[in-house]
Amino acid sequence: MKKKIPVGILGATGMVGQQYVRLLAGHPWFEVSYVAASPSSAGKKYKDALKNGWFFPECMPESVANLTVCDVADVKRAAKECAFVFSAFEMPDKDAIRAAEESYAAAGMPVFSNASAHRHTEDVPMLIPEINAQHLDIIPAQQKSRGWKRGFIVVKPNCSLQSYIAPIHALLQAGYEVKRVIVTTMQAVSGAGYPGVPSWDMIDNMVPYIGGEEEKTQFEPYKIWGAIEGSVIVPKEDIAISATCTRVPISDGHTASVSFEFGDKPRRPRSGVGVPTGASGKPTVKEIIKVWRSFAGEPQKLGLPMAPQQAIHYREEANRPQPRKDRDADKGMAVVVGRLRECPVLDYRFVGLSHNTVRGAAGGGILNAELAMKKGYIG
Amino acid sequence: MKKKIPVGILGATGMVGQQYVRLLAGHPWFEVSYVAASPSSAGKKYKDALKNGWFFPECMPESVANLTVCDVADVKRAAKECAFVFSAFEMPDKDAIRAAEESYAAAGMPVFSNASAHRHTEDVPMLIPEINAQHLDIIPAQQKSRGWKRGFIVVKPNCSLQSYIAPIHALLQAGYEVKRVIVTTMQAVSGAGYPGVPSWDMIDNMVPYIGGEEEKTQFEPYKIWGAIEGSVIVPKEDIAISATCTRVPISDGHTASVSFEFGDKPRRPRSGVGVPTGASGKPTVKEIIKVWRSFAGEPQKLGLPMAPQQAIHYREEANRPQPRKDRDADKGMAVVVGRLRECPVLDYRFVGLSHNTVRGAAGGGILNAELAMKKGYIG
Amino acid sequence: MKKKIPVGILGATGMVGQQYVRLLAGHPWFEVSYVAASPSSAGKKYKDALKNGWFFPECMPESVANLTVCDVADVKRAAKECAFVFSAFEMPDKDAIRAAEESYAAAGMPVFSNASAHRHTEDVPMLIPEINAQHLDIIPAQQKSRGWKRGFIVVKPNCSLQSYIAPIHALLQAGYEVKRVIVTTMQAVSGAGYPGVPSWDMIDNMVPYIGGEEEKTQFEPYKIWGAIEGSVIVPKEDIAISATCTRVPISDGHTASVSFEFGDKPRRPRSGVGVPTGASGKPTVKEIIKVWRSFAGEPQKLGLPMAPQQAIHYREEANRPQPRKDRDADKGMAVVVGRLRECPVLDYRFVGLSHNTVRGAAGGGILNAELAMKKGYIG
Amino acid sequence: MKKKIPVGILGATGMVGQQYVRLLAGHPWFEVSYVAASPSSAGKKYKDALKNGWFFPECMPESVANLTVCDVADVKRAAKECAFVFSAFEMPDKDAIRAAEESYAAAGMPVFSNASAHRHTEDVPMLIPEINAQHLDIIPAQQKSRGWKRGFIVVKPNCSLQSYIAPIHALLQAGYEVKRVIVTTMQAVSGAGYPGVPSWDMIDNMVPYIGGEEEKTQFEPYKIWGAIEGSVIVPKEDIAISATCTRVPISDGHTASVSFEFGDKPRRPRSGVGVPTGASGKPTVKEIIKVWRSFAGEPQKLGLPMAPQQAIHYREEANRPQPRKDRDADKGMAVVVGRLRECPVLDYRFVGLSHNTVRGAAGGGILNAELAMKKGYIG
Repeated sequence: MKKKIPVGILGATGMVGQQYVRLLAGHPWFEVSYVAASPSSAGKKYKDALKNGWFFPECMPESVANLTVCDVADVKRAAKECAFVFSAFEMPDKDAIRAAEESYAAAGMPVFSNASAHRHTEDVPMLIPEINAQHLDIIPAQQKSRGWKRGFIVVKPNCSLQSYIAPIHALLQAGYEVKRVIVTTMQAVSGAGYPGVPSWDMIDNMVPYIGGEEEKTQFEPYKIWGAIEGSVIVPKEDIAISATCTRVPISDGHTASVSFEFGDKPRRPRSGVGVPTGASGKPTVKEIIKVWRSFAGEPQKLGLPMAPQQAIHYREEANRPQPRKDRDADKGMAVVVGRLRECPVLDYRFVGLSHNTVRGAAGGGILNAELAMKKGYIG
Repeated sequence: MKKKIPVGILGATGMVGQQYVRLLAGHPWFEVSYVAASPSSAGKKYKDALKNGWFFPECMPESVANLTVCDVADVKRAAKECAFVFSAFEMPDKDAIRAAEESYAAAGMPVFSNASAHRHTEDVPMLIPEINAQHLDIIPAQQKSRGWKRGFIVVKPNCSLQSYIAPIHALLQAGYEVKRVIVTTMQAVSGAGYPGVPSWDMIDNMVPYIGGEEEKTQFEPYKIWGAIEGSVIVPKEDIAISATCTRVPISDGHTASVSFEFGDKPRRPRSGVGVPTGASGKPTVKEIIKVWRSFAGEPQKLGLPMAPQQAIHYREEANRPQPRKDRDADKGMAVVVGRLRECPVLDYRFVGLSHNTVRGAAGGGILNAELAMKKGYIG
Repeated sequence: MKKKIPVGILGATGMVGQQYVRLLAGHPWFEVSYVAASPSSAGKKYKDALKNGWFFPECMPESVANLTVCDVADVKRAAKECAFVFSAFEMPDKDAIRAAEESYAAAGMPVFSNASAHRHTEDVPMLIPEINAQHLDIIPAQQKSRGWKRGFIVVKPNCSLQSYIAPIHALLQAGYEVKRVIVTTMQAVSGAGYPGVPSWDMIDNMVPYIGGEEEKTQFEPYKIWGAIEGSVIVPKEDIAISATCTRVPISDGHTASVSFEFGDKPRRPRSGVGVPTGASGKPTVKEIIKVWRSFAGEPQKLGLPMAPQQAIHYREEANRPQPRKDRDADKGMAVVVGRLRECPVLDYRFVGLSHNTVRGAAGGGILNAELAMKKGYIG
Repeated sequence: MKKKIPVGILGATGMVGQQYVRLLAGHPWFEVSYVAASPSSAGKKYKDALKNGWFFPECMPESVANLTVCDVADVKRAAKECAFVFSAFEMPDKDAIRAAEESYAAAGMPVFSNASAHRHTEDVPMLIPEINAQHLDIIPAQQKSRGWKRGFIVVKPNCSLQSYIAPIHALLQAGYEVKRVIVTTMQAVSGAGYPGVPSWDMIDNMVPYIGGEEEKTQFEPYKIWGAIEGSVIVPKEDIAISATCTRVPISDGHTASVSFEFGDKPRRPRSGVGVPTGASGKPTVKEIIKVWRSFAGEPQKLGLPMAPQQAIHYREEANRPQPRKDRDADKGMAVVVGRLRECPVLDYRFVGLSHNTVRGAAGGGILNAELAMKKGYIG
C-alpha cells in the first residue's frame, strides 16, 4: 500500500478544523499528521485541547486524538511534518490570517484555506472545482511574483454560494446565458462557527441578517467566473445578483430560494452538452433538469475521492430539498435542488441546498487539495 | 355603559376559533355570546369541548369558558343569540364551508370569514381594511343578488400576504407605480392550524413548500387591488408577483424577503401624501421609509379598536424584524418592516413580518367586523 | 399623585438588566432614574448602549431609552440620583460583584441583587418573599456589623429553585414534614444570559449539565429555610435534596420533575391552615392540591404590586404545565404546578414550572424591594 | 456467497417500517423481500406508497423501492415470500394487531414485533437480548399451547426503557442488588411516530406527559427481569420504579435522568464478573463504571451483526450524553451513559441516552431476530 501524504490543519480545534479531522479519517491519499492552534492549546494532546469538546457524533479518529497540538506560529516544524496544510482559522483578524497563510506558503507548503482573508487577493484562486478548476493555472504566476517555490495559496468561497452557484453554472456551461439572479438564503447556525449564534436568537425565531454575508454572496461568484489575465484573475461581473441572507434555527445545511432570468441573445446551447430548447428560445423545465443531472466537472471526471458522484441532485418531490433530510446527500458534497418552476417575474425559480460545513467548508477544502494533487501541484 | 353586541364564532374550538375568543376578551364593542362547532362538541361547555386544550398562555375568558357549544348546523339558534358571526372553520371541505357561511348570511347574519372558501367569489369582498375598505360597497349588490336582507359575507385574505402587501400598497397609494415583486416567505407553523405540521419536519429542518400557498400569495393581491364593476370585484393584475412559500420552525409570525421594481412611467407621487423623489425618478430609501411610516388607512382614521396605531412599523436595526421579538408589535396587528436597501436586480428589497394568527387571521377578521360596524353595515 | 421612588439598575444593559427595565415600566411605586454599566457603555444613551439590542417584544420604555448610562464605579452619582439599586451584574468575577454591591450599600443605598456573589454571605438574606420574608429582620444586624446606615444587601436565590421550592414549602407550612426531594430540572436558555448557550448545542439537542447549578439548587433552599441566630442566618439542612439540572431548547421557563417523601413523624397539620390527612397519615392528592391553592405568603397578604395573585397555580390537565403556555401565568410570577400523583418510590411526584427571568430573576428582585419597602427598610 | 434469508415487514410504510428498510440495507443475513401495509397501499410500488415520503437522509434502498406493497391481510402470500416478518404496525387498534400477528405465526412465520399489543401476553417473550436472551426458551411452550409449528411471536419493549434498564441490569448481573429507581425521561418526537407530535407543541416548549408511557416504563422491566415458570413468564417486581416521561423538541434520542438505590443485603458481587466494593459495602463510582464498560450480553458474545460492540458506552465529559451527538454511537445500538455521581437522596444518579427508533425500535427488532436465528429458532 502506498504511503499517504502527511497533511496539517491550522486552527484544528475549532468547528471547521474538527470537520477537517472528521472528513479526513480514512482518506485514501491524505493523513492528518499535524495539528496546530493558538499558543494556549500548544503542547496539549489534540483530544485534550478541544475546549468546547468534539462537535460530531462520530468518534474522534484515534490517530489524531493523540497528536500533540503545535503553535500555529511554528511554521518550521510544520514544514518538517507535513506536505501541505489546510487553513481553518476562525480568528477575527484577517490581516493576521493573511500573514500566517503566507508564511506557510513561503516555507514551501501549499495552503488550502477556508478563511476569507485571501478571497479578494488577485493572484489567489478561489475554487469550486466543478466550476473553475482551470484557475489553478495561476499558481506558477502566484509563486513567481511572491518568490515561493513549492508553496502557494488556494482558497474556497463562502458557504452561502454553494446552494445556487452550481445550478446556475451548469446552465451557463450548457450554453444558456443567465443575466439576473435573486436569491434569499436560509442559513444554518454552524455557518457562524462556535459559539456562534446565541440560542436565545434561534429559539422560535430567525434573524434576517448576517453581517458581511450578502456582499460575499454577491461578489464571490464574479471571481469564480472570472478569467486569468496575466498574473491576476479578473472578475466577470456580467450577471446581476441580489442576495438576502438570513439565519434560521437549523444546525447544518444552507437553503436558497432562487429566481433567475436568461439573457436576451439566442439561448441555443453551444455544444452537445446542452439540449434542444423550448419554442420560446428558453430551455424548458425538463431541459434544465437534464442539464443539472448531467452536469459534471473535473472532480467527477478525475474521480476525486471527496467528489460527489453527481454534483447536482434534482429531487422531484414538491417538498424537497429539506436540510435534515438532504444535506448529507453524496457525502454532504452534492448540491440538492428541487422545485424548478416558472417564475412570474424572472424566468425560472428553484430551491437549492448544500451542506455548509462539508461542501461549504472542510469538504470543499479537501476537494481543492485533491484537485491540486491530481493536477501535479503538490509534492 | 352601552350594551355590547353579541357575536358568534363558528369553528370556535380550533386554533383560529380560540384566537378569536382570546382577542375578543374585553373588546369594547363585541361580546362572544355564541360558540359553534361540529356536532361532536355540541352540548358541551366550551372549556370541556377543546379536545386539544386551550392554545394560549392567557387564561381562557371565564365568560366564554362556560358557554354551551352549539352545532354549527343550528343556524336558527345562532340567529337568535348573536348579531353576526366570525367563521373560523378549519374543515378541509370548501364546498361545505361555502354552504354553511351562506346559510348564516341567508338567516340574516353578517359573516366575517377566515376561510378560503369564498375568496374567489366575485361579489364577496376580501378585505385588508387599510387597503381596500371601499370594497365593502359591494355588500348591497351581494345582498340583492342573493336575496339576503341583513346578512352578507366578507372574507379576509391568506396570512402569507400580510408581510408584504401593505408596504407595497403604501407605495402605490403614494403615487409610485410598482410593477414587479419577488417574495420568499418563511412561514410559522401556526399557519397550518392544529395539529398542522408534524414536529418531525420542524426540528433541525425547514420545508420549502406549502401546498396551495404560492397560488394564494400571488393571486389574492389582485382581488384586493381590484375594482368594483357593477356587482363584481374585478381583479387588477398589473403587478407581476412571484412567491416562494416555505415553512420554518417558528410558532407564530410570517417573515418575507421581498424585492420589487417600480414601473417605467414617471414616478411622481400624485398628491401631497408622497414625497419628492430621487434624481433617478425613483424614491430614495428615506422617502420610502417616510411613506411607510406615514401610511394610514381607514382603521387608523376611524380609530377602530383592533387597528394598530401605526399600520407599518419600520425598524432601523440591521437585524430586524425578527418573529419572536416583533410579531406582537401594536397588538400583533402591525406589519414590521426592516432592511430596506437597493436591490442589484430589481429596484429595492426589504424584509417584512406580520403575526399570522393575529393580523393574518382572527385579528384581521375582527378588524373587518369593526370596519363594517363603523360603516353601518351591521344591525 | 405621589411621587415615585427613583431607582437604579446596575448592569442595566445585560439580559437581566433589560428585564428590570421592562418590568419596572409603569410600576406604581418605583421609577427607573439611573442605569449603570461597564465603562465602555458609560456616557451613551441607554438605547444606544445595548450592544446586543433590546431583547424583548415590548417596546423599550421611552423614559429609560434616553437615560445616560453611568459607570458602575461612580457610586456617588448613583447615591444622588436614586434611592436604591437593583444589581443585575453578569460579569464572571464574583469578588468584583461582591465589592461593588458593598460599595453601594456603604454609600447608603439598599441593594437588591440577582447575582450569586452574596448568596453565601451569612448576614445577607436570600429571599423568596412568600417563604422567608422574616429574614429581612437581619438587616439591622447586617448594617450594624458593617457600619452601614441606610444601605444593606438583599439577594434572591437561583432561578432553578423556583419551580419546586414553593410547592414543598407550602406543605411544610401546612404542617407536613418533607424529608427527601429528588428533582430533575429542564431549564431554559435565558438562564445562561446572553450570548449564553450556543445555538449549535440547542438545535435537535439538550445538554444534561449546567456548571454549578446543581450545587446551588441543592444548597440554597437550606439557607432560605434557615433561622436567624444572632447576626447570621443558619441554614436548615434537614431535607435531603438531589438535583439534576439540564438545559433544553426553550427560551424562557424552567420545568422541574419532582418526587418527594414525607417524614416519619405524625403528619398532622399543626394548625387550621392544613387539612385532614388520609388514612395512611399522609395527605391525599386532594389535600395537597388544596394546600397549594390556598398557599399565600407576605406578598399576597400585603398586596405587593409584583406579587402573583396566587403564588401556586395548580393545573388539572394531564399535559400541563408547559413552558410556552404557562410561564407567563400571573405576570410570570406564579409557580405553575401539575401532574401531582403518587410516586412508586417516594411518596408523591409533580411537575413545576416558573419563569426564570421574571419570577426567577428581575421580577423576584422587584418583589424583594417591594417587601423591604412595605416593611419600612427603604427611605 | 450464502443466500440471504428473505424477510417481510408489516406496516412497512410507516416511520418504524421505513427504519427497518433502512437498517436492513446491506444486512449480512437478511434481505427484505416482502413489504406489507394497509389495503390502500397494496399494489403500489414501495417508493410510491409512502404518502409522507421517505423519512431518512440515506437513499431508499433500490431493491426495496421497487417491491410491490402487499395487503397485510394476505398472510398466504407472505408465507410464500418470506421466512419471517417484522411487525411495525402503527395502527391504534391493539386487538387488530394482536390478531394479525397471530395469523402470521399460525401460518408458520416467526414474528418479531415492535407493537405493544403482545407485550403483556404471558407466553410471549419481551426481549432486550443483552438482558433476557434466555426468555427465547419459552418459544416451544408458546408454539405448543397455540398449535403453531414454525411460527412464534417475540416482542421488544417500549423505547423509553432503553436509556436506563441496561445500566441497572449490568449492576444486577454483577451481583449488586438495586431496590429503587426514579427516572425522568426527556423523549424525542420520533417516539410518537408520524405525524405524531404537532410542531405547535414542540417549538419553544416541552410537554411533561406522554399518554400510557409511564405505565409501560414502570411495568415492562418487571417482565424483562421475570422468570419462565412452566409456560409463562412471571414478572419480577422487586424493584420499585418511578417514571416521569416528558416530550422535548428533539428528533431522535431519548434521555433519562436516573437516581437509584441499592438494597440492604450485602452487596458483594456473586462472581468474578463484579469488582471489589467500597468500604460502605456499596460499589464506588469507579467500580460501577467498570461494571458498565465490561457489560456484555449474548449479542456481544455471539457477535450478532446488529449488536453494538459495547452495550454501554460511558462518557467522562461532564456534559454528555447529548442526543444529537451521542444517539448514533455504535450504529445507534449502544446506550450512552454519563454523569454517574452520588445522589443525596438515593445512592447514585446518572444520565442515560439511547436512540429510540434504532435501539428502541427497528434496530432492537432486528437484534431479536438475529438472536433467534443464531439460537436456531428460525428455519
